[in-house]
Amino acid sequence: MLYRQQYGIPVEWGTAVTVQAMVFGNAGDDSATGVAFTRDPANGEKVFYGEYLVNAQGEDVVAGVRTPKAMAEMAKELPTSFKQLEKVRSKLEKHFRDMQDFEFTIEHGRLFILQTRNGKRTGLAAVRIAVEMQKERLMSQETALLKIPAESIDSLLVPVFDPKALKAAPVIGKGLPAGPGGATGRIAFTAAAAELETRKGNKVVLCRTETSPDDLKGMLHSQGILTSRGGVSSHAALVARQLGKVCICGAGDISINYERKTLTAGKFVLNEGDYISIDGSTGLIYKGMIESADSEVTRVIDGKLKASKSYTYQLFQTVMKWADKHRTMNIRTNADTPAMAQRAVAFGAEGIGLCRTEHMFFDGDRIDYMRQMILAVDEVQRRSALKKLLPFQRKDFVGLFKAMQGRPVTIRLLDPPLHEFLPHDDTVRRQLAQKLNVPLDFVIERIKALHEENPMLGCRGCRLGILYPEITEMQTRAIFEAAAQVLKGKKGIKVKPEIMIPLVGFRQELADQLNIVHRVAKEVMTKRKIKINYLVGTMIEVPRAAITADEIAHEADFFSFGTNDLTQTALGLSRDDMGLFYEAYQQKEIYNKNPFASLDQTGVGKLIELAVERGRSTKPNLKLGICGEHAGDPSSIDFCHRAGLDYVSCSPPRVPIARLAAAQAKLLN
Amino acid sequence: MLYRQQYGIPVEWGTAVTVQAMVFGNAGDDSATGVAFTRDPANGEKVFYGEYLVNAQGEDVVAGVRTPKAMAEMAKELPTSFKQLEKVRSKLEKHFRDMQDFEFTIEHGRLFILQTRNGKRTGLAAVRIAVEMQKERLMSQETALLKIPAESIDSLLVPVFDPKALKAAPVIGKGLPAGPGGATGRIAFTAAAAELETRKGNKVVLCRTETSPDDLKGMLHSQGILTSRGGVSSHAALVARQLGKVCICGAGDISINYERKTLTAGKFVLNEGDYISIDGSTGLIYKGMIESADSEVTRVIDGKLKASKSYTYQLFQTVMKWADKHRTMNIRTNADTPAMAQRAVAFGAEGIGLCRTEHMFFDGDRIDYMRQMILAVDEVQRRSALKKLLPFQRKDFVGLFKAMQGRPVTIRLLDPPLHEFLPHDDTVRRQLAQKLNVPLDFVIERIKALHEENPMLGCRGCRLGILYPEITEMQTRAIFEAAAQVLKGKKGIKVKPEIMIPLVGFRQELADQLNIVHRVAKEVMTKRKIKINYLVGTMIEVPRAAITADEIAHEADFFSFGTNDLTQTALGLSRDDMGLFYEAYQQKEIYNKNPFASLDQTGVGKLIELAVERGRSTKPNLKLGICGEHAGDPSSIDFCHRAGLDYVSCSPPRVPIARLAAAQAKLLN
Repeated sequence: MLYRQQYGIPVEWGTAVTVQAMVFGNAGDDSATGVAFTRDPANGEKVFYGEYLVNAQGEDVVAGVRTPKAMAEMAKELPTSFKQLEKVRSKLEKHFRDMQDFEFTIEHGRLFILQTRNGKRTGLAAVRIAVEMQKERLMSQETALLKIPAESIDSLLVPVFDPKALKAAPVIGKGLPAGPGGATGRIAFTAAAAELETRKGNKVVLCRTETSPDDLKGMLHSQGILTSRGGVSSHAALVARQLGKVCICGAGDISINYERKTLTAGKFVLNEGDYISIDGSTGLIYKGMIESADSEVTRVIDGKLKASKSYTYQLFQTVMKWADKHRTMNIRTNADTPAMAQRAVAFGAEGIGLCRTEHMFFDGDRIDYMRQMILAVDEVQRRSALKKLLPFQRKDFVGLFKAMQGRPVTIRLLDPPLHEFLPHDDTVRRQLAQKLNVPLDFVIERIKALHEENPMLGCRGCRLGILYPEITEMQTRAIFEAAAQVLKGKKGIKVKPEIMIPLVGFRQELADQLNIVHRVAKEVMTKRKIKINYLVGTMIEVPRAAITADEIAHEADFFSFGTNDLTQTALGLSRDDMGLFYEAYQQKEIYNKNPFASLDQTGVGKLIELAVERGRSTKPNLKLGICGEHAGDPSSIDFCHRAGLDYVSCSPPRVPIARLAAAQAKLLN
Repeated sequence: MLYRQQYGIPVEWGTAVTVQAMVFGNAGDDSATGVAFTRDPANGEKVFYGEYLVNAQGEDVVAGVRTPKAMAEMAKELPTSFKQLEKVRSKLEKHFRDMQDFEFTIEHGRLFILQTRNGKRTGLAAVRIAVEMQKERLMSQETALLKIPAESIDSLLVPVFDPKALKAAPVIGKGLPAGPGGATGRIAFTAAAAELETRKGNKVVLCRTETSPDDLKGMLHSQGILTSRGGVSSHAALVARQLGKVCICGAGDISINYERKTLTAGKFVLNEGDYISIDGSTGLIYKGMIESADSEVTRVIDGKLKASKSYTYQLFQTVMKWADKHRTMNIRTNADTPAMAQRAVAFGAEGIGLCRTEHMFFDGDRIDYMRQMILAVDEVQRRSALKKLLPFQRKDFVGLFKAMQGRPVTIRLLDPPLHEFLPHDDTVRRQLAQKLNVPLDFVIERIKALHEENPMLGCRGCRLGILYPEITEMQTRAIFEAAAQVLKGKKGIKVKPEIMIPLVGFRQELADQLNIVHRVAKEVMTKRKIKINYLVGTMIEVPRAAITADEIAHEADFFSFGTNDLTQTALGLSRDDMGLFYEAYQQKEIYNKNPFASLDQTGVGKLIELAVERGRSTKPNLKLGICGEHAGDPSSIDFCHRAGLDYVSCSPPRVPIARLAAAQAKLLN
């Protein structure tokens, strides 16, 4: 059931049962059984990979009760069968045009192939197999692209152990490398313990003798999985690979005692909660915590490694180039700082789809001015505080515009309820009162007055700018002054600001804010004697905006779907408060997937389709994008493509995934 | 602007200007000017009503600077002109087939009619004029129905002063009765003061020398309006009548000093904040607070007055009979107690559209068991508390079923977040801990654990029943055991329970709860050897439910639109938190009307239309209703009729308004 939920398989599909005749691999020493992969499912290398056991049945291999031998040894032990298997291996790949995972049994020297299927593989292997099979002309570029689960790209980007730290760390054992990458965390011996630790915010490595489907939840919560028994095709290895988890299995050097809650590796005895580190690429197990380091791809991007020295980077680049050739949607990123923006551009972002200006208000002195603005009792006081914030905002925007080198930058005006900026702590409140030279009681009263029953539905978004137009004024001024500065700078960098008004539900709301933006833009442009091309649009994040998109489109140059809020309002569901009942909902399979992770296409999706249709009925060339969390989720990206969006905007690390997913969406639809 | 907002006039319509030639009523003693009504606009009586001033211009009458003379006096003072006016009066009514409010000027004995228009009138007058004009064959029954603003019916139902208390109260003055009914409240001399007092929860009577459009807001906040100058066509009188406010104007006996903030009436000097009472039907002003009593209509309904003795009741009944003949929508009521239900039936309710079961959990011991249930740490504890609540619920339902005498009763299962039932007060928490025999810390911790960031979007509605199925079980059992008891009782009263599952967004949610309801219903029916006809349906109150209504309809016998929540989620707007910015929104005319008072037809309405269409595409005979606050608002009722709903369900006092509004909707569409 958990498996179904993880992969979004509807309960209606049921379970099928196949009945087959039986052959016996446990008929003597001239009999054997095994599981083989036509290529290495861990790293994708074109080698015959797998394991077998003489005089045994399939369960013995899969269950990990006896540790099986590597396929290479079979060449010596059962040379005839091995040659037959080599032929089968080549035939299978040519026929199925994909890496195969097949089971075989040898009964008194006679080879039977029990089943074959496309082999499960790690992200790295998926990329490598697809790229190499395309080179071998076993598949087309299009097929190769579709063969790589978009999420797989992530495993080429995740941090690996820092080489120096790795060298210094004490190796306490070795197992089979079954899921690449480096994982550090506290030892948990049960799924429940793993879950408990992660809830505390700790990282976990799940350590088991062997795993069963009951452990799936624990595995989901873990950074990595370590088993003392079982081979590379054991349950632990298969599942870890699918989940993209680091995994070492069959580590015979270690022994786990569930009762005493200890993991013994030679002279080392580790307890539950102690730190352990595992390298799923080498199979080495380390005591303690190891610093992780950037992946090869990241190091190439950062100029710390030559592209020619990294085969992984070359694989990555090949896939990305292919993807860019096929996709029709643009990929933008959600970034608030020049550093984030630069990283995203290096990953292929073609613009910023969401800059949350509120993130700029927390640094250093800014938060004080921000609080001064919030506590102001009239417009004069508010304007005085805003005046102090202006130079900071302007500087931030200059940095962003420079980093984006003429690519579009969508800036969302202040969105969260103001009380989010106020201190909850008594000491800080006292300090604030002192700084602002007001009585503490005044601060406390103002904070109380700003309390909201349902802040998600309260005074936020454009409601702030409508209530306090001077905030919109200041932010607009900062954007245009920054744009002018960059445009007039020595390097003459182009600037494309796209100003986004949040939480609009009524056309009049957008019109009200639009007036301010246009007025201030004109003031700055006249004063600086410069023309700045800009757009003003809105987020579609309450159902009313989607329903009345035809009206709102009259005022908007673009729509960006804020699917986090849109999901909350369309479902009447607070992401922060769903914890209490979410488990019951999962158990009863009411949500196929978490609607905040993967777009609820039947509900929220219909609202988006409606908004697209109605918005474009008013303005056929309306620019459309999405900037919610869903913009980094492949199945949601597929939806966005079908819905006719122009771009998706996701967090910087997910840009490569989005590029691939967008290409796949184009190829599939 | 405020006037526009109050009456929902879009800003786009602008203001027109008419230019006319001038005649002079101030040309000497053979000249005059006046305002007349073809019938009494205060009570609707067929008398020539109005006032005039010799040697004066129109402003003098309207502005209330000089107190004008009653029309009756003109018969003596200017007999020729008066006869001419009587002819005009009759001609106007025959031509316009409605009561006219016309202005005239006599210049050297020559009569000029300056303008005529359908006269503004009180609710009572609207009803009386319509009924009497229909009898006089000046209008058809249909026209008569349409001539009565549905809200007017309310003024026939509002409480009037208790006759005994009235006799005992000291009369301190007399003015012109300009808006019927009795009003008691604290004196406020300015609109601002009126607003301030009502914000404190106090009732207010606005006392002014005369009123101007600036006072509109203050008038809206007041129970009644008292002016010392101006006649029955002064600003104060006109506006009060439209608003259905109690009003006395031109009370020359009193004098108001704004500076000293005093109202002097003979020997009495009252200050701002003192209580005053005004009877807008007699024009009498009283010192102090007077208990109010039920209206004639209510007294007839309650059997305290014979129908034949009350002309008002007869008017009321005539209009209601006409309305029932024409309307096609059913009218239900929102009631949680037998008393409320009985009152609503007397007002014409044809069923209960919403019984909020949570209101039943606060009385006496129940709240303790409810809290015990909420604080339970496991199902066993929860079931034990629920068992204690069952008999209370059953008894309540027995009462409701009996009161409704076989009419349908829609019962909504538990809806609000559980923490709403928990005490906020430390003392009560300590008492609770003692009663439940648990440590205080346990109570505090549980309350903390149940805290939600956005309770409106949290663990409530069907989420409760899905998380704790035993709650749904208990409530269902109580409903069916009560139904069995009433059905098997000596009187053999029929029972039609309609069980309503709240906050459904996913078909699976409804299916889950449906299973429990059907199972428990079957258990009770088998045990009691009885068949109970019942329906199970859902509220449509989150946008997703509206969008996926075609799916949800598979599981539902009926939909009831919960437009309060639907407005909150569709607009992303918390009714509790809109105070901070609502005024700015009104000033900028972003909302035409308060979307919680009158249905946002462009936004929320579209969702309802979608749900109706999709729901009926699955189940053509799906029963559809509305049970939000909007169900008592005439323009929203018109929308519901057009949308094809089967019924509207409003609060008991609004049932007559809804009956009339439903008839008007049918006649207009």
